[in-house]
Amino acid sequence: MTSANESTDFPIQNLPFCVFRTDHDETARCGVGIGDQIVDLPALKQAGIVKGSAYDALQLSCGTTLNELMAMGPDASAQLRQTLSQLLRAGAKEEPVIAGCLVPQSKATFSVPANIGDYTDFYASIHHATNIGKLFRPDNPLLPNYRWVPIGYHGRASSIVISGTDFHRPLGQTKSPDADTPTLGPSRRLDYELEVGIYMGKGNPLGQPVPMDSAEEHIFGLCLLNDWSARDIQAWEYQPLGPFLAKSFATTVSPWIVTMEALAPFRQNWSRASTDPQPLAYLDADRNRASGAIDLVLEVLIETAQMRANGEAPVRLSLSNFTDSYWTVAQMLAHHTINGCNLTAGDLFGSGTMSGSAEGSQAALIELTSGGVNPVPLPNGEARSFLEDGDRVILRGWCERDGACRIGFGEAIGTVLPQSQGKL
Amino acid sequence: MTSANESTDFPIQNLPFCVFRTDHDETARCGVGIGDQIVDLPALKQAGIVKGSAYDALQLSCGTTLNELMAMGPDASAQLRQTLSQLLRAGAKEEPVIAGCLVPQSKATFSVPANIGDYTDFYASIHHATNIGKLFRPDNPLLPNYRWVPIGYHGRASSIVISGTDFHRPLGQTKSPDADTPTLGPSRRLDYELEVGIYMGKGNPLGQPVPMDSAEEHIFGLCLLNDWSARDIQAWEYQPLGPFLAKSFATTVSPWIVTMEALAPFRQNWSRASTDPQPLAYLDADRNRASGAIDLVLEVLIETAQMRANGEAPVRLSLSNFTDSYWTVAQMLAHHTINGCNLTAGDLFGSGTMSGSAEGSQAALIELTSGGVNPVPLPNGEARSFLEDGDRVILRGWCERDGACRIGFGEAIGTVLPQSQGKL
Repeated sequence: MTSANESTDFPIQNLPFCVFRTDHDETARCGVGIGDQIVDLPALKQAGIVKGSAYDALQLSCGTTLNELMAMGPDASAQLRQTLSQLLRAGAKEEPVIAGCLVPQSKATFSVPANIGDYTDFYASIHHATNIGKLFRPDNPLLPNYRWVPIGYHGRASSIVISGTDFHRPLGQTKSPDADTPTLGPSRRLDYELEVGIYMGKGNPLGQPVPMDSAEEHIFGLCLLNDWSARDIQAWEYQPLGPFLAKSFATTVSPWIVTMEALAPFRQNWSRASTDPQPLAYLDADRNRASGAIDLVLEVLIETAQMRANGEAPVRLSLSNFTDSYWTVAQMLAHHTINGCNLTAGDLFGSGTMSGSAEGSQAALIELTSGGVNPVPLPNGEARSFLEDGDRVILRGWCERDGACRIGFGEAIGTVLPQSQGKL
Repeated sequence: MTSANESTDFPIQNLPFCVFRTDHDETARCGVGIGDQIVDLPALKQAGIVKGSAYDALQLSCGTTLNELMAMGPDASAQLRQTLSQLLRAGAKEEPVIAGCLVPQSKATFSVPANIGDYTDFYASIHHATNIGKLFRPDNPLLPNYRWVPIGYHGRASSIVISGTDFHRPLGQTKSPDADTPTLGPSRRLDYELEVGIYMGKGNPLGQPVPMDSAEEHIFGLCLLNDWSARDIQAWEYQPLGPFLAKSFATTVSPWIVTMEALAPFRQNWSRASTDPQPLAYLDADRNRASGAIDLVLEVLIETAQMRANGEAPVRLSLSNFTDSYWTVAQMLAHHTINGCNLTAGDLFGSGTMSGSAEGSQAALIELTSGGVNPVPLPNGEARSFLEDGDRVILRGWCERDGACRIGFGEAIGTVLPQSQGKL
């Protein structure tokens, strides 16, 4: 196993899960990333070298999604990762057998790794909420509930697509401030939103809230998520019931799910500024204060069609961190279930656009450009107020800390294709 | 087949679909209602008397949900209904065989008839939108987008339950206007909302809007839907991203899906008042103007714990009609997909609370009581501002018209249990 020792997002400390297929075998199957390879989990089961409870977990990883494994809770995936960690160490006697179960990532086609029953989008960066609030409600940017309620809304699950899936600029109804009536046309204020995706593991029954202390036992792992947004459609449609068609044309997720276990070295304490209210008791726990935050660096890059044609590398648009979240993943989950709402294995949360307070940490164009007023200059002389056809947006994420091995999240990539609907 | 000839919701002109099980056989299976019986579709297939394309449709009706049949589009269910109609007519020679495939409805336990991938809740009664708007925004009751945009939002699919499923009063964060800070507690303003549910049939691929002319080919049928709502949670959480935990604790659907074919005799023309704007072209079609509306009577009844204890019959709270909808089902569907959003067989739309303009047609307590200010008196001396523990809400719907046989929707029933969460 040399590949995992080089600089990679996927050292042996990471072992993220995915679902993939190859040209050779078109059946989707579950895998685990190591270096530039994927361990084909059904093939590993077939090889017969895994026994005991790790074998039980492997048996749950032989479908076309990870839902069955997710539903078993954190012990199952932990046992599987522990066994893989032993099998994949340099010089392990099983090396020849494992080698037969590896598929190069370059030969894999990934798919959305879970059957996502419900998708919930939170709004957990107070910096994003304030920046957006200023644009939509200049007199009232941050609403009174924000510091008390982990604000979220239900999103569209069917239009969640895997990284690499391009999509057409959406048609929609918009109204310019000086027009009397709305019109139908392609969105002219198309944006990305960098978010952290959070996959549910073990579910909870309807009517039974999950308390803070056990909230993380219901989380399978994290990914990157691009909540593409048509700002002009959103501005016209969103009152009073929230965003709808402004978001439901495409949401991109990265192929890899990084487990909570792999993220353990990158946890840090969570606290509230003395000027902010302390959370209500159902959103508070010692464990959350001690280690609720996750030090995950988040980056957005853009590659325009012109850059691609000229062979120029993508350029960074923003750099932020999941520690900029006002609410932790445990708080999101405890809040989501406090009314008895049932979560199901494979459900997905989005964190909300993860903007920081620093210059250059605004994780959507609408923030970077102050609502499209100040276009972002690009090194090749182009500039962007909002996304243009051919623009490719690349999300990256990684964790690094002294004394711990760096782990990465891979990428979530999508390219905007021109609007081209059939006749309507 | 005598049962269908009596006064019933399910004459041979209806033939609605459902999913059920019995004590005798706990496997969920698809059925069709006739009188007080259900045709067990897998049993009918087994009986071997159905041939041709109706047999193909029957083969798709042998799973634990109706999704496969739904996905085939309206021809498949139409062929099956046509064949059933012939087999079930009085004196048909297949009567003895069919009799062996019947299960009394009184012995059936129903389940949610589809795997609902995504649930979208519209807001299609302008009367409801105005009544609610007055309470939440007295200065601005009907927002400027309402007459142009079929307003909708994504709802929670996992907490959709079948009629008869009781649920606990939800816990949630609320803030009274005179308090400085919010508190956690059981909702004190629990309400129902009478809606029409709309199940998708054949889906559309991501990126391909469904035009108005073919919108109804993507609809499998209608049901009754109770969008239970915690008004105090809603008021505190809903800005800026819409309702979330105020709705996601339970949504009740009726067991029966009445097909668009069965509703054909009850279609009527759709038009806009001259004082309202005409819809944009993508929401307009001759077919929609000619027959877009559906004359479906809708009723809400309440049975309190005290009424139940005293053996008193449920009493009517409201009577309205689906013709009160400002938008047709075709318009909802065309709008939902205009941005390229993909619908999937089994997806569910709610119409939004279907209130009319007349006194007694307000289809939620918050409207009937002007926000809880004027309690509704009940004949037994009780009164209701909002729902109390033990209250049972019953939704009914039916179509009747001179020259057409009356068809019914059955009932959607739910009972409020006291709040009783585990320790948090």
